[in-house]
Amino acid sequence: MTPTITAFEQSPDRGRGLARDMRVRWALEEVGQPYDVRLVSFKEMKEPAHRALHPFGQIPTYEEGDLALFESGAIVFHLAERHAGLLPEDANARARAITWMFAALNTVEPPILERESAILVERNKPWHAERLPMLEDRVRARLGALSSRLGDADWLDGAFSAGDLMMVMVLRRLDGAAVLNEYPNLCAYVARGEARPAYQRAFAAQLAVFSSRVPAAR
Amino acid sequence: MTPTITAFEQSPDRGRGLARDMRVRWALEEVGQPYDVRLVSFKEMKEPAHRALHPFGQIPTYEEGDLALFESGAIVFHLAERHAGLLPEDANARARAITWMFAALNTVEPPILERESAILVERNKPWHAERLPMLEDRVRARLGALSSRLGDADWLDGAFSAGDLMMVMVLRRLDGAAVLNEYPNLCAYVARGEARPAYQRAFAAQLAVFSSRVPAAR
Repeated sequence: MTPTITAFEQSPDRGRGLARDMRVRWALEEVGQPYDVRLVSFKEMKEPAHRALHPFGQIPTYEEGDLALFESGAIVFHLAERHAGLLPEDANARARAITWMFAALNTVEPPILERESAILVERNKPWHAERLPMLEDRVRARLGALSSRLGDADWLDGAFSAGDLMMVMVLRRLDGAAVLNEYPNLCAYVARGEARPAYQRAFAAQLAVFSSRVPAAR
Repeated sequence: MTPTITAFEQSPDRGRGLARDMRVRWALEEVGQPYDVRLVSFKEMKEPAHRALHPFGQIPTYEEGDLALFESGAIVFHLAERHAGLLPEDANARARAITWMFAALNTVEPPILERESAILVERNKPWHAERLPMLEDRVRARLGALSSRLGDADWLDGAFSAGDLMMVMVLRRLDGAAVLNEYPNLCAYVARGEARPAYQRAFAAQLAVFSSRVPAAR
């Protein structure tokens, strides 16, 4: 049965692949699972029909027969559990890969989102110039620790896993910010993720939604 | 083999059970798994020996034979996967319970932590009075959606699960803030979690660390 995911009808990032459907698309491509996409408008996302699928009125969702899931982390985990390719077979290595999924979403992403949210929502507030460096220091605390752990390895724990997929996507939310460039091994890590054929197929698919609907800016 | 977790040597919350070892203690009690605790100081948490266990220099960690994990979400999931009692047997219900774990940690907790962090770190900044209501509105957006989904049910999806454990703990981080009281069904939900015998055993265990070390404040 082909699963259906939801994604933004109008991409707020203009197809840069920062929305959370990209995480799910990438996982689907890694495991070779074809999928359908239903696009939802910002208005539809907050209506009861979509809220029944996603209580918080966001994307992505995942429908497969009588199963309906939300939360990109949970959907990627579901795919990783049911298909080969995203979690190691060894039980301890598998538990460690899952740990990196949670670390990406609960330890590394929050300060990155806090910084992003300040730039989006508070950039015209009188305090923004003083707060932004505080927020970047909080991001640095996480990136520094991550950079030390990664060292010169290709991936966080042995072979590429769902933990790397999630961490690369979380780091991509920095969207080329100077603070990421302070950690060359993390930049190389993100680039390794982006170079994977499955990533590239997923990226092209989410970009196509945008480029097919909005004329190119001049 | 008895697993060992780490917890704060000096509880920053004075034993109110808000630190993340409480999530793991509760899960261990729910599944009936005895455990040892190694207390770490703030200084030790940032040293290489602890960083080898937890790259971000935090608690809790989990050691069981040759397996070492960090991230409370990952540890609770590990316990839920290996013991009965925290995840349903039905595959779809299990996937939905895991979804609620991710929703607690990646959708509901971030705005709650952002509010907490502002109160801890920015309360003397000139912008705090104007920012705090903005942060509380972000918390309300999540609590309102969660409250609507929960309705008058006891738990988020059928029987109590690791998803409820994580969500109750995340809501407890609001630590009785007025914003939580706006949602009586969420207050009752937290109280139901706190009333569970396993919760109470875990709470007493974390409180004992504090009350055995620090004289009562007068």
